[in-house]
Amino acid sequence: MGKVLMKGNEVIAEAAVHVGCKYFFGYPITPQSELVAYMARRLPGVGGIFLQAESEIAAINMVYGAASTGVRVMTSSSSPGFSLKQEGISYLVGAELPAVICNIVRGGPGLGNIQPAQSDYFQVTKGGGHGDYNIPVLAPASLQEIVELTEDAFDIADRYRTPVILMGDGMLGQMMEPVEFKERSEREKPEKAWATTGTRGDGGPRIITSLELDAEGLEKRNWSLQQKFALIKENEVRYESYQTEDADYIMVAFGTVARITMNAINKARKNGIKVGLIRPISLWPFPEKPFIETRDQVKAYISVEMSAGQMIEDVRLAVNGHAPVDFYGRTGGVVPTQEEIYEKIITIAGGVSV
Amino acid sequence: MGKVLMKGNEVIAEAAVHVGCKYFFGYPITPQSELVAYMARRLPGVGGIFLQAESEIAAINMVYGAASTGVRVMTSSSSPGFSLKQEGISYLVGAELPAVICNIVRGGPGLGNIQPAQSDYFQVTKGGGHGDYNIPVLAPASLQEIVELTEDAFDIADRYRTPVILMGDGMLGQMMEPVEFKERSEREKPEKAWATTGTRGDGGPRIITSLELDAEGLEKRNWSLQQKFALIKENEVRYESYQTEDADYIMVAFGTVARITMNAINKARKNGIKVGLIRPISLWPFPEKPFIETRDQVKAYISVEMSAGQMIEDVRLAVNGHAPVDFYGRTGGVVPTQEEIYEKIITIAGGVSV
Amino acid sequence: MGKVLMKGNEVIAEAAVHVGCKYFFGYPITPQSELVAYMARRLPGVGGIFLQAESEIAAINMVYGAASTGVRVMTSSSSPGFSLKQEGISYLVGAELPAVICNIVRGGPGLGNIQPAQSDYFQVTKGGGHGDYNIPVLAPASLQEIVELTEDAFDIADRYRTPVILMGDGMLGQMMEPVEFKERSEREKPEKAWATTGTRGDGGPRIITSLELDAEGLEKRNWSLQQKFALIKENEVRYESYQTEDADYIMVAFGTVARITMNAINKARKNGIKVGLIRPISLWPFPEKPFIETRDQVKAYISVEMSAGQMIEDVRLAVNGHAPVDFYGRTGGVVPTQEEIYEKIITIAGGVSV
Amino acid sequence: MGKVLMKGNEVIAEAAVHVGCKYFFGYPITPQSELVAYMARRLPGVGGIFLQAESEIAAINMVYGAASTGVRVMTSSSSPGFSLKQEGISYLVGAELPAVICNIVRGGPGLGNIQPAQSDYFQVTKGGGHGDYNIPVLAPASLQEIVELTEDAFDIADRYRTPVILMGDGMLGQMMEPVEFKERSEREKPEKAWATTGTRGDGGPRIITSLELDAEGLEKRNWSLQQKFALIKENEVRYESYQTEDADYIMVAFGTVARITMNAINKARKNGIKVGLIRPISLWPFPEKPFIETRDQVKAYISVEMSAGQMIEDVRLAVNGHAPVDFYGRTGGVVPTQEEIYEKIITIAGGVSV
Repeated sequence: MGKVLMKGNEVIAEAAVHVGCKYFFGYPITPQSELVAYMARRLPGVGGIFLQAESEIAAINMVYGAASTGVRVMTSSSSPGFSLKQEGISYLVGAELPAVICNIVRGGPGLGNIQPAQSDYFQVTKGGGHGDYNIPVLAPASLQEIVELTEDAFDIADRYRTPVILMGDGMLGQMMEPVEFKERSEREKPEKAWATTGTRGDGGPRIITSLELDAEGLEKRNWSLQQKFALIKENEVRYESYQTEDADYIMVAFGTVARITMNAINKARKNGIKVGLIRPISLWPFPEKPFIETRDQVKAYISVEMSAGQMIEDVRLAVNGHAPVDFYGRTGGVVPTQEEIYEKIITIAGGVSV
Repeated sequence: MGKVLMKGNEVIAEAAVHVGCKYFFGYPITPQSELVAYMARRLPGVGGIFLQAESEIAAINMVYGAASTGVRVMTSSSSPGFSLKQEGISYLVGAELPAVICNIVRGGPGLGNIQPAQSDYFQVTKGGGHGDYNIPVLAPASLQEIVELTEDAFDIADRYRTPVILMGDGMLGQMMEPVEFKERSEREKPEKAWATTGTRGDGGPRIITSLELDAEGLEKRNWSLQQKFALIKENEVRYESYQTEDADYIMVAFGTVARITMNAINKARKNGIKVGLIRPISLWPFPEKPFIETRDQVKAYISVEMSAGQMIEDVRLAVNGHAPVDFYGRTGGVVPTQEEIYEKIITIAGGVSV
Repeated sequence: MGKVLMKGNEVIAEAAVHVGCKYFFGYPITPQSELVAYMARRLPGVGGIFLQAESEIAAINMVYGAASTGVRVMTSSSSPGFSLKQEGISYLVGAELPAVICNIVRGGPGLGNIQPAQSDYFQVTKGGGHGDYNIPVLAPASLQEIVELTEDAFDIADRYRTPVILMGDGMLGQMMEPVEFKERSEREKPEKAWATTGTRGDGGPRIITSLELDAEGLEKRNWSLQQKFALIKENEVRYESYQTEDADYIMVAFGTVARITMNAINKARKNGIKVGLIRPISLWPFPEKPFIETRDQVKAYISVEMSAGQMIEDVRLAVNGHAPVDFYGRTGGVVPTQEEIYEKIITIAGGVSV
Repeated sequence: MGKVLMKGNEVIAEAAVHVGCKYFFGYPITPQSELVAYMARRLPGVGGIFLQAESEIAAINMVYGAASTGVRVMTSSSSPGFSLKQEGISYLVGAELPAVICNIVRGGPGLGNIQPAQSDYFQVTKGGGHGDYNIPVLAPASLQEIVELTEDAFDIADRYRTPVILMGDGMLGQMMEPVEFKERSEREKPEKAWATTGTRGDGGPRIITSLELDAEGLEKRNWSLQQKFALIKENEVRYESYQTEDADYIMVAFGTVARITMNAINKARKNGIKVGLIRPISLWPFPEKPFIETRDQVKAYISVEMSAGQMIEDVRLAVNGHAPVDFYGRTGGVVPTQEEIYEKIITIAGGVSV
């Protein structure tokens, strides 16, 4: 259908529909309400169901119900609303249900404000909910990448029977860029023999649950989950490396911050500073390989975040003491400028800002 | 009043009352319901208020309300119920309200079961809620320590205007031990000039909120929060070191698991293996010092957890590549035995189990 | 489609669909759950929406929302659930919204039981909700009559912009009889120029509300409502008279009780007692005419109810002192038998039971 | 304590406290919020509990819980909020629980407005909830009468194990008059041997419920309720007759409307028109006696209401065709003036207004 000019939030919605998501349960919250509104208009036309739930908690539990029947289903929220979904997310993991959950992060903690932020990094990557679990988290940096990652998110969800989180920030949700919804060769869709689609004399009732009262039984399920997480770590790591081969300094940034950082890097390169970028695309599993490959050659890594320093922990774990890890961040909805980041590079490199 | 034989959950409740907590809002969930029940009986007698809320979400928001008036207030739950409180917890942080929140962890994820676990480690230490924040987390290993840490929790909460989490597991909540509620010289209680106790012509309304629509303003608040977190990291780290001076191997464990591990260590020592223990008492701030002091001398650290491997990340961050970090864990409500841990020590030490 | 054997609850549902009702919001409660279940299966197939709401209160407010857009919409409940809808029903009246609400009455008060009853007569006819209002109430006595009255209910709702209540009892809901859904010449459907279907530059927003802060304004609306009620009283009275022409005694009964009473009358007639029946079909407006026509000739009226005596007030108001009004009733889910009613006739008639 | 100048809503609250009501559960709604606010301040001081519930439905169910323990308890609302309580009220009746429920009526139906009205007459007297039941309803006309009737309401509730409704209008709730809370010789308080105050080996658990699955059993309970209602009708009828002995015309009015009507009557008397007043104080049981005593002598009754004509039905039932019954009403929050009512008298009396 060629290129279309759309808002980020709408691109997520349309990409979901494009890969067969017909069910959406959500509750409006700035800065992601366009996604909800788009689904409200769009889904009836494809024979789907949009339902504005009575709360975020209701929405995530409706996702649980719909996912149990094997359909592709999505919900979406922003930081405070995403916190309300933590119990439900843990249930999705425990019951091994595929679903895509979108968090368009805003300034926090608490009510905070409605400006862009990345300060839910820990919440999405370390498990905001209870129990041992990991969830694949994808963080697009452009609207065209939103298309690809949203579509992939559904494939990953189905393939591994897991919720998948799409993490963006308010800036990404609100910006407009031309995007294209291409024909795609989908990953092979696994048959959902586990789905509760009604018994028809075909082998008794199927049960979807996260309850397992017996400790040995629950441990067995947990190690089975851990094996799945290991498999995802093996197969689903995504990142982009930019000018890291000869880099003295490597910036680490994701999402829209990575775009700004890349501009700062280009400027620094013009001024003779050898600086590169590692852009994690999957926040979990976190890309360790590009760090292992570079950590004995670089002088320092700098984690650039729209938070007070969260991803830096994953960077430090990946670097494991082989090099210093520095930090530059803005919080509360302030977006770092190219200039600021360039200044940070200059400072670290011991150079002089021009 | 001398020693009394009590259940862990009840000890938490009585210790809270002992330091002046008269307000409790909660919702029952196994394995912490005795705490709720104890408060229901106890608080009316001290002129306090116990209220069983209509949900965990209501309870945490009632805590927000009560804390805003400057009184000492508590809530309590177990893993799934604790997940439901994540939004509210982030609000408490954002509004800088003192409160004590108890999580008696059970097997997860999802409904899981009602057996003991530590698998909410990430949730309590890395921020289960949204936004940049940290919360002091105290993890007692005995009932007498529950008394001390519960009482300290309220002092820390007041001193720094922050929620404090008490993290236990179902075993600790259910076990009975004799405890004593001693007279204590409290830390100096700060005056709560910020509390919304009604205007009486004394300077206009006081406002408790986590809302700050202006990005610059919210960032300012966030850096101020970060300074507070830094101060807590400086002042409130707690841990116990056991036979680490000459240790070749150091086990790391907290809560009830630390008690079991200590027994395994004793047995290993008897068999000539030089093994020690670092027991984090504050999970956040995580005690880095005992690792820094030992990391260049030991052959390995072993994180022993009732989870699939969560605290190990904090151990690795503290060790920072100076030594290998190994792991032994049980999940889903299975409690590791002394024997298992001893076997693990033997295996790591390359020795032969007897 | 010829005759089909169906359950009463299902007949209501199918009849609603037959006249274009595509939207149903409800919450299950015995003895009307088959209606909800039928709609859940049926509506998706006609491009409609079935939603099981989180409560009866949510359901009636969803009806308010849907009705505001001009579509035909229905909800259904049984006594306790119907009580929960009283605020919403008053709002529908105040905002002049067409909708059909079904009450399959069970034994009360309180939880009561799930047996058939008519003891919500006052609630449906005198206004269970607040404010001055009346609602047309239709009470079918057979499954074929359910078809006709359900279909008419939607026409009446649209014609007068008013909620309409279908009142049945558990027996009627559960019984099976062959029914036919005939082609029908609908009443002229009024155009819904008031419906909030979105502004398209066609004259500004339409507002649906029951709020009118100004007392004079609200009184004006109220007298306008009263005029509408007067019009309904003029046009929509329905009843059946059976052997009343020469009757010395007239039984008054509605719904399934009327069927049983008719059998008792037939038996009494065989034994020479001149007894007839007035069967109100519309409970509001209550049929006064057949009473006015007979009240100076009969020796007594006997109101036969599955309640402790509620309709008897409307009978007394219609008779207005011209003749004695007696009562026979069973409550709490007990259905009066033909024999009991026959005995009552004998007693009143001063005769001797055979 | 002598005379105090208070607002009507506050008088209700203070009178309740005066007779030992220590428990109040409510939700604010204009025009009765002062009652809620007064209780919030007042009850802690008498060792009671005030709780602002999360909704009207929660409040009435909390009343159910508190009443089950035998304490004196109250809730309060205004029209829309009162509608929300209908299920709970029916449960109180079914479980035979004493409680006082206040409805300060405002203009309806629906949201209506916050002006005074009496249009919930049917709702309170005919049973807004489901099932066969009656509830004593007291309608004071002055603030001093509020004191007496509120205090009596608790006595009646305890004596008959029944909820009692206090019905006022917004004008009565908002007006200020001096009142006195006198020492009173209470009716003998029945012992509450049925209250669920905990088992102490004194004869097994007590059960409070409105559930009775067996139809015969529920019918038995219902007739027992009906006997109680008959007893209340015998003992608890209250009314005031004013100049009815020689009256050609009798006005019927309650609450504040009765006060205004009395002034109009005085003026009519001065102009030689023989007119009197029957003021029902108990709306249920409705006072039939003063009508039976006068109905063969008067030329007409005129029901004067702040509604579109509701009490008139009870007047007609009491008059039973012996005399014409006319009506004068204002609705939607409009309060009839003395002049209007006087004009109505003149018109009816065929006289000439001066």
